[in-house]
Amino acid sequence: MLNYDDTICAPATSVGTGAISIIRLSGPQSLSIVDNVVEFASGSASEAAGYSVKFGVIPSVDDVLVSIFRAPHSYTGEDSAEISCHASAFIAMRIMELLLSAGARSAEPGEFTRRAFVNGKMDLAQAEAVADIIAAGSEAAHRVAMNQLRGKYSLELKNLRDSLVHLASLLELELDFSEEDVEFADRARLDALLAETSSRVARLCESFKLGNAIRKGVPVAIVGAVNAGKSTLLNALLGEERAIVSDIPGTTRDTVEEVLTIDGVQFRFIDTAGMREASDEIERIGVERSLQSLNKADVVLLVLDAAAPAEELSALYEDVRGRISPKQHLIVLGNKSDIARDSPFKSFDLKISAKQGSGLDELKAKIAGLHDSAAFNADENLVTNLRHYEALSKAATDLSAARTGLAAGLTPDLLAEDLRSAIRHLGTIFGEITTDE
Amino acid sequence: MLNYDDTICAPATSVGTGAISIIRLSGPQSLSIVDNVVEFASGSASEAAGYSVKFGVIPSVDDVLVSIFRAPHSYTGEDSAEISCHASAFIAMRIMELLLSAGARSAEPGEFTRRAFVNGKMDLAQAEAVADIIAAGSEAAHRVAMNQLRGKYSLELKNLRDSLVHLASLLELELDFSEEDVEFADRARLDALLAETSSRVARLCESFKLGNAIRKGVPVAIVGAVNAGKSTLLNALLGEERAIVSDIPGTTRDTVEEVLTIDGVQFRFIDTAGMREASDEIERIGVERSLQSLNKADVVLLVLDAAAPAEELSALYEDVRGRISPKQHLIVLGNKSDIARDSPFKSFDLKISAKQGSGLDELKAKIAGLHDSAAFNADENLVTNLRHYEALSKAATDLSAARTGLAAGLTPDLLAEDLRSAIRHLGTIFGEITTDE
Repeated sequence: MLNYDDTICAPATSVGTGAISIIRLSGPQSLSIVDNVVEFASGSASEAAGYSVKFGVIPSVDDVLVSIFRAPHSYTGEDSAEISCHASAFIAMRIMELLLSAGARSAEPGEFTRRAFVNGKMDLAQAEAVADIIAAGSEAAHRVAMNQLRGKYSLELKNLRDSLVHLASLLELELDFSEEDVEFADRARLDALLAETSSRVARLCESFKLGNAIRKGVPVAIVGAVNAGKSTLLNALLGEERAIVSDIPGTTRDTVEEVLTIDGVQFRFIDTAGMREASDEIERIGVERSLQSLNKADVVLLVLDAAAPAEELSALYEDVRGRISPKQHLIVLGNKSDIARDSPFKSFDLKISAKQGSGLDELKAKIAGLHDSAAFNADENLVTNLRHYEALSKAATDLSAARTGLAAGLTPDLLAEDLRSAIRHLGTIFGEITTDE
Repeated sequence: MLNYDDTICAPATSVGTGAISIIRLSGPQSLSIVDNVVEFASGSASEAAGYSVKFGVIPSVDDVLVSIFRAPHSYTGEDSAEISCHASAFIAMRIMELLLSAGARSAEPGEFTRRAFVNGKMDLAQAEAVADIIAAGSEAAHRVAMNQLRGKYSLELKNLRDSLVHLASLLELELDFSEEDVEFADRARLDALLAETSSRVARLCESFKLGNAIRKGVPVAIVGAVNAGKSTLLNALLGEERAIVSDIPGTTRDTVEEVLTIDGVQFRFIDTAGMREASDEIERIGVERSLQSLNKADVVLLVLDAAAPAEELSALYEDVRGRISPKQHLIVLGNKSDIARDSPFKSFDLKISAKQGSGLDELKAKIAGLHDSAAFNADENLVTNLRHYEALSKAATDLSAARTGLAAGLTPDLLAEDLRSAIRHLGTIFGEITTDE
């Protein structure tokens, strides 16, 4: 196990509105540094028991509470302390200054969690889940990240890896006795085990699309002609949601793409540039980008101005239909239905008025209905991380090579090599230092 | 002592970037509610000692640390708990929901501090200092608020009040024996004591201007003609500061008035509408407002376009000079000095180029030099609160009436009434329920 000999500190809470700020320290000098900075009425942090709280004074700065954690029973596995002070940027800054001059070092982003990983308190997949937990914007995203943090996801991968280690050991046993021409591993049994493991890896690889949709939101592209009301629709959809979200003070939202949670499923709305004949190069690039987001979208909302001439609408409708794949969902909206009641264009899935807010509930229900909320709410392990997906894909390739090799009668040493490669790839997910098992 | 029988809960940290969020509870059911919501590996919050931390799990939500405080040894004086979870808006919301359904009530703004006051953990002046501590944007503002929170300010007021109680008791003693025509209180001694107490109250009243400047910042009005570069100057002054402030994540700033700390003194810059002949009613109101902020300012920065005709500058200069009082500080700036090197106008205090950033350090030094930084940094009790200022002013009036009455040979009962009124007014500052002492 690696160990750190320096002590890091950083504010653990955001500075803003609020009553309390927390500044935390981790490392071997944590408690002695606290004793240098905080005056306690009796005793010291160095002498205090783990999982205890002490009241103290930082002269000219604040009255504070210090929570004390002793190695290995802390988040990082090191001696740690959390200083709880009044939520003032000024106080947080002064306490940080005092801690730094008492010998602590300002932590890099994510360094507390990195130490927890290096000190063996969590594996790499769990450490990666911490950031996802904090960013989770829907119940499903939160649950997936929490399964990963709690190690349920790592456990499934470790079970997979153990199956492969078992297979490889069977092959290597055969290898040791190869000169005696003994065939320990039953080839049919081996193939069945490989097939089963491959299908588990394949399921995880396939879960990436859903996992990614849950983590980042299902991509919904809003396309349509200029002035058809795309931005008005987006604002109208978000408007109600904003009122809910703003109950949580300080919630920030992505400014490029807007996220909306419908029935517990998170959707990521991408407002695109209006589609029309590009009159110059710059505009052409904008339209090109719209088409790209259209390609990446899971749901395409085509916003049509119901008051526009039917031929124009039909042309745009056919254009968009020609561009999307059968796997994508298209919803054709007749906007401005308040002023255009009788359009000769007949392919609207829904008539709405983004301006007046009519038809929006139906639209939300339609969008939500496109997704199997059961899949979103199932308690299965999902891959949400591109790095994991890539490692699993490589493992899948190795397993496929092993199966092909087995069928072709390859020697055990070559088969074992494929398996060892798959094991290594799975191991990178939880950050194992690979040894020959 | 009043007591609450319900239990309140609220997030104590702002939701935003950060690693940890704190949700706190206070009230008699705090610990049993925590036990309903959090699963501990062993034991329970209800059984845990005060000032201890327990690790627990909130199923499907998060792994948490709970700090336990037992009455009266807590911030509010009641049984309390702080739940420390991952900093996610989603998690905070779920934990709040669980606490509410387990019987807690969502706290009103400031309710934890109000309970601390009602339960006798702090007086009203100390409770009011909590908000000031959190908002303090300079070292001086922080020190003043901290003196108030730590009770140093209340102590001075209580000493004052005790002097008055002593005076009143002397007078009342005389009153009890009045039929025997005994004069216990030496009138000259009484007058000396009254004079001394009055001057202490007067000093506190006078400290309000400085206290207010420290708490809210010294008001600096930026005035000048349209397009003289007022806003460019404000941005240039704040530009460097912003880089410093933004080191503290999530720091928000007032959008109407901008605050800048120079040499530990906080200045509040008020950008005004350009001064020119108003061509319509609405514009006239804007100019009127500019003149009002000019009247309230401690420092007036007159920004002149050095490239403009000298007569125009002289006219504006004379106009502003005519409007400000001798107590206000005027600094006349020749802006755009990069393009206008030789202006015939000779009353510039400083030539600057807001656009190029030249002369700004000299300007800051000039602004800082106008204020006695010793006064800002002295460790004296200052009145920063309008309510306190008003109470002290009323007490001053009462004391003045008492002194006049004493000189006019008023009877002890009338004098004692003035003193009792002064005592009551002082008592309102720390929130005492007045009884006849």
